[in-house]
Amino acid sequence: MLDSLFRPKSAAVIGASTKELSIGNRVIRNLVDFGFKGPIYPINPKADEVRGIKAYKSILDCPDNIDVVHMVIPARFVPQAVDDCGTKGVKNIIINSGGFAESGPEGEAIQNDFMERARKYGIRILGPNCQGIINTDPEIRAYCNFTFTKPDPGFISIVALSGGVAEVIHQEFALMGVGTRIYASNGNACDITIPEIIRYLGSDDGTRAIVLYVEGLRDPETFMKVVSEVAARKPVLAMKAGRTEEGAKAASSHTGGLAKEDLATDLIFEKAGVLTFRDEGELCQAAAAFATQPIPQGNRIGIITNTGGPAVIATDVFVDAGLSIPPLPAPMKASLKEKLYPEASVNNPIDILATGNAAHYRACMDAMMDDDQFDCIYVNFVTPFFVDTDSIAKEIVAVNKAQNKPIICNLMTDKNQWTETVKILKEGGVPCFSLPGAAARAMSAMARYHTIRTRDIGEPTIFDDVDKAQARLIIDQAKAAGTENLSAADVYTILSAYKISVAEWRIANNVDEAIEAAKQIGMPVVVKADDERIEHKSDQGAVAVNLRNAPAVRNAVEEMSSRLEIQDMRFFIQRYLPGGKELIVGAKAEEGLGHLIMFGMGGIYVEILKDVVFKLTPVTPLEAEEMLSSIKSAAILQGARGANGIYQEGVIDTILRLSQLLNDLPEIQELDLNPIIAYEDQAFVVDARIRI
Amino acid sequence: MLDSLFRPKSAAVIGASTKELSIGNRVIRNLVDFGFKGPIYPINPKADEVRGIKAYKSILDCPDNIDVVHMVIPARFVPQAVDDCGTKGVKNIIINSGGFAESGPEGEAIQNDFMERARKYGIRILGPNCQGIINTDPEIRAYCNFTFTKPDPGFISIVALSGGVAEVIHQEFALMGVGTRIYASNGNACDITIPEIIRYLGSDDGTRAIVLYVEGLRDPETFMKVVSEVAARKPVLAMKAGRTEEGAKAASSHTGGLAKEDLATDLIFEKAGVLTFRDEGELCQAAAAFATQPIPQGNRIGIITNTGGPAVIATDVFVDAGLSIPPLPAPMKASLKEKLYPEASVNNPIDILATGNAAHYRACMDAMMDDDQFDCIYVNFVTPFFVDTDSIAKEIVAVNKAQNKPIICNLMTDKNQWTETVKILKEGGVPCFSLPGAAARAMSAMARYHTIRTRDIGEPTIFDDVDKAQARLIIDQAKAAGTENLSAADVYTILSAYKISVAEWRIANNVDEAIEAAKQIGMPVVVKADDERIEHKSDQGAVAVNLRNAPAVRNAVEEMSSRLEIQDMRFFIQRYLPGGKELIVGAKAEEGLGHLIMFGMGGIYVEILKDVVFKLTPVTPLEAEEMLSSIKSAAILQGARGANGIYQEGVIDTILRLSQLLNDLPEIQELDLNPIIAYEDQAFVVDARIRI
Repeated sequence: MLDSLFRPKSAAVIGASTKELSIGNRVIRNLVDFGFKGPIYPINPKADEVRGIKAYKSILDCPDNIDVVHMVIPARFVPQAVDDCGTKGVKNIIINSGGFAESGPEGEAIQNDFMERARKYGIRILGPNCQGIINTDPEIRAYCNFTFTKPDPGFISIVALSGGVAEVIHQEFALMGVGTRIYASNGNACDITIPEIIRYLGSDDGTRAIVLYVEGLRDPETFMKVVSEVAARKPVLAMKAGRTEEGAKAASSHTGGLAKEDLATDLIFEKAGVLTFRDEGELCQAAAAFATQPIPQGNRIGIITNTGGPAVIATDVFVDAGLSIPPLPAPMKASLKEKLYPEASVNNPIDILATGNAAHYRACMDAMMDDDQFDCIYVNFVTPFFVDTDSIAKEIVAVNKAQNKPIICNLMTDKNQWTETVKILKEGGVPCFSLPGAAARAMSAMARYHTIRTRDIGEPTIFDDVDKAQARLIIDQAKAAGTENLSAADVYTILSAYKISVAEWRIANNVDEAIEAAKQIGMPVVVKADDERIEHKSDQGAVAVNLRNAPAVRNAVEEMSSRLEIQDMRFFIQRYLPGGKELIVGAKAEEGLGHLIMFGMGGIYVEILKDVVFKLTPVTPLEAEEMLSSIKSAAILQGARGANGIYQEGVIDTILRLSQLLNDLPEIQELDLNPIIAYEDQAFVVDARIRI
Repeated sequence: MLDSLFRPKSAAVIGASTKELSIGNRVIRNLVDFGFKGPIYPINPKADEVRGIKAYKSILDCPDNIDVVHMVIPARFVPQAVDDCGTKGVKNIIINSGGFAESGPEGEAIQNDFMERARKYGIRILGPNCQGIINTDPEIRAYCNFTFTKPDPGFISIVALSGGVAEVIHQEFALMGVGTRIYASNGNACDITIPEIIRYLGSDDGTRAIVLYVEGLRDPETFMKVVSEVAARKPVLAMKAGRTEEGAKAASSHTGGLAKEDLATDLIFEKAGVLTFRDEGELCQAAAAFATQPIPQGNRIGIITNTGGPAVIATDVFVDAGLSIPPLPAPMKASLKEKLYPEASVNNPIDILATGNAAHYRACMDAMMDDDQFDCIYVNFVTPFFVDTDSIAKEIVAVNKAQNKPIICNLMTDKNQWTETVKILKEGGVPCFSLPGAAARAMSAMARYHTIRTRDIGEPTIFDDVDKAQARLIIDQAKAAGTENLSAADVYTILSAYKISVAEWRIANNVDEAIEAAKQIGMPVVVKADDERIEHKSDQGAVAVNLRNAPAVRNAVEEMSSRLEIQDMRFFIQRYLPGGKELIVGAKAEEGLGHLIMFGMGGIYVEILKDVVFKLTPVTPLEAEEMLSSIKSAAILQGARGANGIYQEGVIDTILRLSQLLNDLPEIQELDLNPIIAYEDQAFVVDARIRI
């Protein structure tokens, strides 16, 4: 548990400095200024005191147990200092200094050295090359950090790979009047990991939501496991930068980490139930909503405004985000018509006009709060000088206090003039924005979280009719033989072992066997030369299709035998399937994560329109259905323009069986079922490839 | 000219009130507080003075000429007051009051009444139901407006349909320290229009860029004409809300205007060279950049940072926006390596590290300013306590002063602590943002404007080989006959008159003529019953394809004749064209705007993938090429996956000729060339429809 790191009872600074503009001085100043509840021990071999606090020559001289030690000393002195901390029984060290893995092999060696010593003593390390932690809990008030933003106490905790981005988030929070609960930035992350911190925040009662900034995931498997658990209990709002190739390059140049541009992070976030953002401003604004508002129970929004245009802007944002803007029920409409000005527009949005007063706002809010057809309320509030804006603010606060449904306010005012109105709303815990679009996006994020949290993807199907042992044997033999690309016979045997529907096939060692196989399968057939030395069968003339009779099969086999000149060549005879729609299912191993499975329609749909969808294994039936329904050309699968659809159940079955196969055979690096030929009532794999 | 409105020498308020919380009082207070340079005349039949200023019983009693009169009186008194103003020789009236067209037929009648009187006197009206204008010019200082935000003087002028949104923009400007030059909101817009205001701002030397908010365009033709002229000289940054169906509904419920959700507005903006935004925050942030920075000469960005993460975020945004992030040239790299800390990352982004100082920033900025490979510079600047941030700010300001290339700064600081640093940057005219993404988007908008301004779409081709008279005759005859849907013969005659490549065709009145026509065209042919009473030819069995010989033609004609039972039915005989790719070109009249032309590939591409592109007529050759190259399936037209492409020149020719045809025949409401069958070296219209 990281309790002693995040709730330290005492803190020491190795490298405490008397120089005002040094980190070793600033950490002490920050602890003092922030009102740290425990004793502070500056460690400095030469000074008697630092910032008026008694200093000690060595950590060993401190009279107390030490929960957290800051190290602000050159890298080369760190290993010895860690030893000293071990002797002293220190629990955690925050290494602010740089010069470790991020700076090259020499620094990496020092990092390995101190980590070895720390493990011996059971000391946990945050960093090196990191900012540290902040805990605003009034019982703790730990500002174990050298930076400058002093957050107000609040309910949102922040974990950021980048200290710079954390600064941006803190500043944005400060501007919006949002407080922070706990903050941590772990730099090179040589010991304490982001998943560990998230797990701790998940169990911290004071943390209502977690904001996460990453540029890649080092240990996706653990991340997935931990964050799935935490996200089921409280919102995890995340942004991954380095999305673009250039962004990823920029990322890897500034950190000792392993940021990599990948699709997998998005899929992990999706599967773990993380609420993702592509913009740091939007992330912060959403956090402001989560900080004080209950999660909506649906996505139906009621909009109240006293000025038209900003409601139009908000409406566009809500529609884009998939929220529904239901019309007012007739009785509500009738009732409000009586309570508002006659010129008011009693629709959704309700426009009470700039002259509308507190009673008008209250009537609209009450009506929407009490009606089951609305899940959340958006209030546009411009402050004309001729209305009593304080009273309006008080009514919004009163309704907000019930915490019945979430309320977001877009407050359009001059904060220097309407100070009292602003104060009432702020102290009343109403999240206020100054841009209608930003406010609408914050509310939309809450509705999106509701959808994520209530979405049950179910469990993967377990097929017990599969022959795992046979598939395992083939893989083991291939591994033993050093084979990378499995032969067609092996590929189809594995697929057949998992009862994946493949076009009927036989293996033949010579012309006679080929003809016999073709007869058993039934004409027409395809003949393929089956040898791993032939990499591109079509290009090398190793495939003959639509062979309608025995002479044609003989001809094909003899021609390939003589031309390809491969000894002991075998032939793969398969039913020829004309017509039907081409589909592709593919899989690719992701380190520590199982596999990515891809689905799409073949040909131009994949190659030109890039109309494909990915999921992470294990894939559940719901997810497999989503794969088919979420490609852009989904209507074709369902049967569009009078044409027949395809046998979707069969394709879903194939995806689910494939998911189980990949789970059982993690050695598979790449697998392609390309194409699957799908008809209205059947679907068969007609070409497949497995690389291990 | 609207000079007397925007640069008034005197102002009067009809409805001036002694009540503090009334609009008739506030307008006077605003004029006084803002330091209006001319005399102010409160008009009030009962009071001797308003806010200490001598009041007059009637506008007629004023001792001076009046440039601008505010009317803050009930609607029913407005017509008489307009008459009085006419007698007095008043030049402009701002009608703040509501109760006109926006409130129903009664109000509309009053609006028509006062407008008739105003026209008689040559008085220009702003409003009614509007906020008014602001001009911050030190020689004018006109705050003819009842709202509360007092903008600083600046270079950005604002035109907004919605006063509420204008308030949002002003507040956002205030937060960012951006000034306003002129502001106008024209409410019901019964006289002075948005294009008129934009034309005025275009000629106002103090206006460097124009920010525009609309929810639809009332007079698209004039808008297009005026804004094209203005946007060629200075940036016009625009947002249209009411994009979504629901948003448009919300818009129409709050204004007397005619907001309509349409594609046309986007196309008008595109054609007029307007820089469009979908988010009001992004619009304001871009304006902040345009307010002080020169337009970049290209889209190659240099990034300098002293903290990693925010540069990663910015990089993602730049890449998404299509900017290029060139690597540093080798000599620059070598030179900077010597000047920066050894651990600094000398790439693009350059990370000078948090410890980087003013000289480091300066070296990087100078290098990028002097190198032709960079068009604009993005500076990330976090303010660590241990560096001299004021000096860094001074260097940024010094480089900015040259106005050589645009600079944007993402300043990550606590503005309450780093007050001096913030002040240096602000007074130095460096646009500062507090979110890396927002800063990057502002710079991207400038680069986008460069692209728009340098893009020359050219002139539409004028084909002089067309027979306009013949086409005109057919249209006139159809109009005279009250025909809506033209017969196939008429449609093809018109297309042929414009030398649009159609599949060869003949008209036949009976079986023998049909057979003769088929022989002339050459088999195989298509036979269609040609009668406007047959609406859906295929469904009604009025089409027979792939007829290979005379008996087949005879059979088809006789069968249709006997079954369809239409007297004097004619037959349309056309060459049958198998194979080839199906394309669609369509057109739809847009009131006051010519036509929208659509292009796409037929079948599922249009119906399921919605892969189509639109342009407004007249279409230039460049635009026609863009239509073909900008659909998602463009690669298919060019020849993908070893398949042949299509005859793109022929399709472009068809689009250009169609554009001229539509220009000559504006009566055409809808026109479909569906499909065009395109081969590698030919393309023919094989079915077409015209509705007038």
